[in-house]
Amino acid sequence: MKYNTKQKSICKLYFVIFLHKFAYAYIALLCKNDNRTGASKAHQRGFSLHESCVTMNKRITKATQMKYVHQRPPPWSDTLPTLHVITPTYGRPVQKAELTRLTNTLLHVPNLHWLVVEDSVQRTALVSRLLENTGLNYTHLNVETPENLKTQKKPRNVRFPRGTMQRNLALRWLREHINPNSSHKGVVYFADDDNTYNLELFEEMRWTRKVSVWPVAFIGGLRYESPKINSQGKVFGWKTVFDPRRPFAIDMAGFAVNLQLILSKPQACFKLKGVKGGYQESSLLQGLVTLSDLEPKAANCTKILVWHTRTERPLLVNEGKKGFTSGSMEV
Amino acid sequence: MKYNTKQKSICKLYFVIFLHKFAYAYIALLCKNDNRTGASKAHQRGFSLHESCVTMNKRITKATQMKYVHQRPPPWSDTLPTLHVITPTYGRPVQKAELTRLTNTLLHVPNLHWLVVEDSVQRTALVSRLLENTGLNYTHLNVETPENLKTQKKPRNVRFPRGTMQRNLALRWLREHINPNSSHKGVVYFADDDNTYNLELFEEMRWTRKVSVWPVAFIGGLRYESPKINSQGKVFGWKTVFDPRRPFAIDMAGFAVNLQLILSKPQACFKLKGVKGGYQESSLLQGLVTLSDLEPKAANCTKILVWHTRTERPLLVNEGKKGFTSGSMEV
Repeated sequence: MKYNTKQKSICKLYFVIFLHKFAYAYIALLCKNDNRTGASKAHQRGFSLHESCVTMNKRITKATQMKYVHQRPPPWSDTLPTLHVITPTYGRPVQKAELTRLTNTLLHVPNLHWLVVEDSVQRTALVSRLLENTGLNYTHLNVETPENLKTQKKPRNVRFPRGTMQRNLALRWLREHINPNSSHKGVVYFADDDNTYNLELFEEMRWTRKVSVWPVAFIGGLRYESPKINSQGKVFGWKTVFDPRRPFAIDMAGFAVNLQLILSKPQACFKLKGVKGGYQESSLLQGLVTLSDLEPKAANCTKILVWHTRTERPLLVNEGKKGFTSGSMEV
Repeated sequence: MKYNTKQKSICKLYFVIFLHKFAYAYIALLCKNDNRTGASKAHQRGFSLHESCVTMNKRITKATQMKYVHQRPPPWSDTLPTLHVITPTYGRPVQKAELTRLTNTLLHVPNLHWLVVEDSVQRTALVSRLLENTGLNYTHLNVETPENLKTQKKPRNVRFPRGTMQRNLALRWLREHINPNSSHKGVVYFADDDNTYNLELFEEMRWTRKVSVWPVAFIGGLRYESPKINSQGKVFGWKTVFDPRRPFAIDMAGFAVNLQLILSKPQACFKLKGVKGGYQESSLLQGLVTLSDLEPKAANCTKILVWHTRTERPLLVNEGKKGFTSGSMEV
């Protein structure tokens, strides 16, 4: 029996696809035991390390549900630090769209653990299904921001920034589940679901020793805000118009923190009360580092690798009145 | 000389990475000759097949610059039809961000050819660099919409939809560069740079015989618009509030066309003049198919796989007055 050129090509292609699948499966197998051990060790450790932060965020405790899934279709390496990417999210028309395109970005990043924290009474079916289908390595949490802390009618003028309790819950999760004495290397990054990320950003932050920083586009009424870097490559101030004298005049998307630092400073978290607008980031970073500890990334803060994009609220003017579209269609 | 377990793991990982790279290079090599032949054949064919469309869009001819690059880091298969994804784009603050996150999505799609058409006098350095760095298989074109056809001050009330000339130019490129008698299988899709795409969408459209259709979210003042499907799985109308009696009451993001159909109907293109609002899509599709030809996708039009998201124009209120940020920083 003879094969023609096309049939041979197809055979070769199938062989190559088989090699890919085999390689992924093999890497996954190599990593599996290590991580399971890490998780169980963390469970034994308990709450002692972060009492102050737990006390501060009492409300979080009862509302929490946790779920941890290991799937890891992107390659996983034992030598690369894990990026723990924390994404607060809340229900609105574009939520699924935002999480979908963020998923498409994160699916390129090796050694990524996505902590998605819903601002909701319980984990929603929409986000649960979406996460299950991503194939990403994720943890799905939820905590509802109490009514007295959010102002629904003025979403841009909330009393404290949206996502604060959700980010704190994710920090608590890390402190509870990762043993600070393990050799687990990691970095923590706060990635809102509506921002835009260049893939290079994730490799820039990968080897953060304490806190790494970089410019963020479309923030503070400017094309970008940035740390100011001196000739020795150290941060000495902030290129912002809005209150450059803040201790850390930097957006949430503009820094990443070494995981060990998060674990070793259990009191550090985002303050819920008494924090002026624009001081949220400082309220965390002041508990972790001083200005001289900061590590400028993105070619000494000369490249934009993250954009603070915002999606328009869709105008659904023809919806509802006639009950026009089917409510059973998930959008 | 002995190696410990960690060193062995690293060696194994490097070996697996090597296998991946080797596999990609091998597939690229397999495909290279085929496609080069296809391109040169198309060049010999010339303009005869699409005179009517060329006549209609005379302005396009002189403004065109073309560039075609083959790199193909995502796997390429000889058996899968190529998706020719056409994206019109124009300069504005969020352009690079939009193209960056669309790139992150398209990088997952095998056998993809991205035709990016700028609305500009010449191809810009920003888009050129971005495309070069994506590693995607792309064609970079440009044609400027004449001033009398665009209304800068009222971007939502343009006389004809933005991107019309750019989409037509991409259609012309395909007709000039792909031999209709070749065995090249393909599908054409119009993907604006600000929409959100579920990766499943690209596989849904992959085997389009004539024109495939599906619902689109956040359009026409509704959560979604959709083709109406009867019990035989055929399209019999349109679930829209705005003018459901249009021949094809469907958004640009809601359909894909078989490449051979595009090549065999050279007169089909988007009309520039005398087209009422919402009739752009119909002006192309009427030249290609009738309602009975449409192929419903996305589980018989019961799933949302694309969202017509729009990004807010960033408020740069602190910019300019003091010349605050550096103009040399590409954002």
